Amino acid sequence: MSVVVAGGVTAPAGFVTAGVAAGIKRTGALDLAILASTTPATAAGLFTTNLATAAPVLVSREHLEATGGRARAIVVNSGCANACTGPAGMQVARLMCAETARALECEAEEVLVASTGVIGVQLDPRTVSAGIIDAAHQLGAAHHAAAARAIMTTDPFPKDHAVRADLPGGAVTIGGIAKGSGMIEPNMATMLAFLTTDAAVDARMLRQALADACDDTFNAITVDGESSTNDSVFLLANGASGVRVGPADYHRFVDALREVCLELALGIVRGGEGATKLVTVRVTGGATDACARKAARAIANSPLVKTAIHGGDPNWGRLVAVAGRSGAHFDLAGARVEVGGVVLFEQGRPFDERAPQAAAHLRQKDVSVLVDLGTGGPHEARIFTCDFSADYVKINAEYRT
Amino acid sequence: MSVVVAGGVTAPAGFVTAGVAAGIKRTGALDLAILASTTPATAAGLFTTNLATAAPVLVSREHLEATGGRARAIVVNSGCANACTGPAGMQVARLMCAETARALECEAEEVLVASTGVIGVQLDPRTVSAGIIDAAHQLGAAHHAAAARAIMTTDPFPKDHAVRADLPGGAVTIGGIAKGSGMIEPNMATMLAFLTTDAAVDARMLRQALADACDDTFNAITVDGESSTNDSVFLLANGASGVRVGPADYHRFVDALREVCLELALGIVRGGEGATKLVTVRVTGGATDACARKAARAIANSPLVKTAIHGGDPNWGRLVAVAGRSGAHFDLAGARVEVGGVVLFEQGRPFDERAPQAAAHLRQKDVSVLVDLGTGGPHEARIFTCDFSADYVKINAEYRT
Repeated sequence: MSVVVAGGVTAPAGFVTAGVAAGIKRTGALDLAILASTTPATAAGLFTTNLATAAPVLVSREHLEATGGRARAIVVNSGCANACTGPAGMQVARLMCAETARALECEAEEVLVASTGVIGVQLDPRTVSAGIIDAAHQLGAAHHAAAARAIMTTDPFPKDHAVRADLPGGAVTIGGIAKGSGMIEPNMATMLAFLTTDAAVDARMLRQALADACDDTFNAITVDGESSTNDSVFLLANGASGVRVGPADYHRFVDALREVCLELALGIVRGGEGATKLVTVRVTGGATDACARKAARAIANSPLVKTAIHGGDPNWGRLVAVAGRSGAHFDLAGARVEVGGVVLFEQGRPFDERAPQAAAHLRQKDVSVLVDLGTGGPHEARIFTCDFSADYVKINAEYRT
Repeated sequence: MSVVVAGGVTAPAGFVTAGVAAGIKRTGALDLAILASTTPATAAGLFTTNLATAAPVLVSREHLEATGGRARAIVVNSGCANACTGPAGMQVARLMCAETARALECEAEEVLVASTGVIGVQLDPRTVSAGIIDAAHQLGAAHHAAAARAIMTTDPFPKDHAVRADLPGGAVTIGGIAKGSGMIEPNMATMLAFLTTDAAVDARMLRQALADACDDTFNAITVDGESSTNDSVFLLANGASGVRVGPADYHRFVDALREVCLELALGIVRGGEGATKLVTVRVTGGATDACARKAARAIANSPLVKTAIHGGDPNWGRLVAVAGRSGAHFDLAGARVEVGGVVLFEQGRPFDERAPQAAAHLRQKDVSVLVDLGTGGPHEARIFTCDFSADYVKINAEYRT
């Protein structure tokens, strides 16, 4: 049992943050944030699998390895991805950690770093250093909303969330902020999420908890099938609640963590480029887990499916055809398609007379489609995506003149 | 050496065709074609790998297996895909072959069948039978343009091509028609291509020739990464030229066949839904052939790359990032990106001062991008695609009210 609480990423005890306008974005908007624990914390990170890895990802990975999963702070900038920037980019990423460490009086290796924005542009070291000093001075528990804004690029809205979970040993709080797929100025939409908890969790268990919570949340969303050079998710646990998470509490802790991750992940999808709908894609009847995931991902990324949903068209034929080409085991004779719970195709037979009912469902903001692969297998998968509008094309085609 | 000749799919000796309006399309447009050889021909076919396989694909496969690669005719309808139509759909596909065979006085198994159009709708057996009888009466060598039109759905233009190749044994002619990705009324863009030659080629060699010629033509194009339930390519060789293709002539024959396939394949891409540009994607420096193909296909299907090209934006960062997430071996430090031959990123360094030159290239109708994966490997791949416009979304989202 967990309850939603106010305070976002600083809802857990012992966390402070600040968001400032360092001058990286030319618009003068907030573009740099520090998130710090007032005491040493265990830390875990998950990173993009893109081989064109950005400098901050390389540095954060190094730091987590060097400390064995310990951190005091996260420093983040938006407006510049510090990706494809060579040795100079690595230097700036290290400098960001060193400057933050100096201000907080900790080791540089206890600082994690993330960036989001234009690819292939150098981050000015003086601009970023001045911003870090400024942010460090302002650190407090009241600035969580500014931090959520400072990590945005062209996200239509900030995303933060926090819950309190009652574990057998006492109450712990988990909070987070995230930015998603609304980056039009530069190159790739980057997903960043920063999570905090005042539970005490050892580094090894924290890594497992983050992986488990992300599996069906941050790793189960897609806007356009692209994976950025900068994607990072960090989780810091500082133990300020005095409650230690042991093996007996693990599942309840992960459930609460998953709740925060899911809320932030769905926020990313709702704020996807050009998105007008949140689409839940469920696949059942998978012969293997991989089959179910493969089919769900193919459907969630299919431009034909996403444009049909945008147009409010319960086009079951497209769903069948994408499942058939997805690489998953598929048996047309046993397959079933539902749109908003309305069965439109089953046992080789279409039910077109039910199309108006399914079309009414698709006029809502939150919609769902289900494909059963017809193999009789027990495996299921769920992926969250958004619809595909002409605005996506406009955003991505027309931002430079 | 081969030269382009007039006559399309009936340019080779001994082939006749007809295209009629059978009434399958409600608009009254041409919607049924027969393509026949006046003498028995060897035949080869390539089919969709989609597991939601349409009835005509299943029947044509059966017939090619039963005859060991022999055919007299191909019967095709547009306006209805005869896909997801169960046992009734199989009956109609068989009926189409039987009716055509009766009119041409051959065996039903010597007829191949293809359909394209709406998924999940039954094809009326009486309508289609009447159309077949009508078309069979009109068969002639002069109707190749009508046949090219009768297989269209919403293709913006018909696609046919023919060449004459001088082999050591004498001249042979190869012709073809194709339809592509402009199907808005129904569900999936279907690719169909029908090829003819008056060369004499045994069935086994014909299969190999078709596979070889399709590998870097029909199998190297993509509009939106979707693979239809109905994709089919057929090749008939009737020997009417008196010239037999032996092992010594094989490569010259395949070269000429590839020329016809390439012209038709590029026509399909140019006529892609909402397409305004033909984009050639080249990938070099692949550690393996699979790596090169994987990266080229990921780039060609990336909505971020396709929208950037649509907007005339030489966005090398998106190309790097997609190569990095493609699953191919990739080394950022050695990677190179060219747009229209202009190097924009090399050895970790961007050359943004050259962007205007690359942007000028992207204003043309036919454009090219190249990514070297930086691994030093010798493998290359080439994929043809189109740009991604707001019209694609409109076509696919707004066709039903």
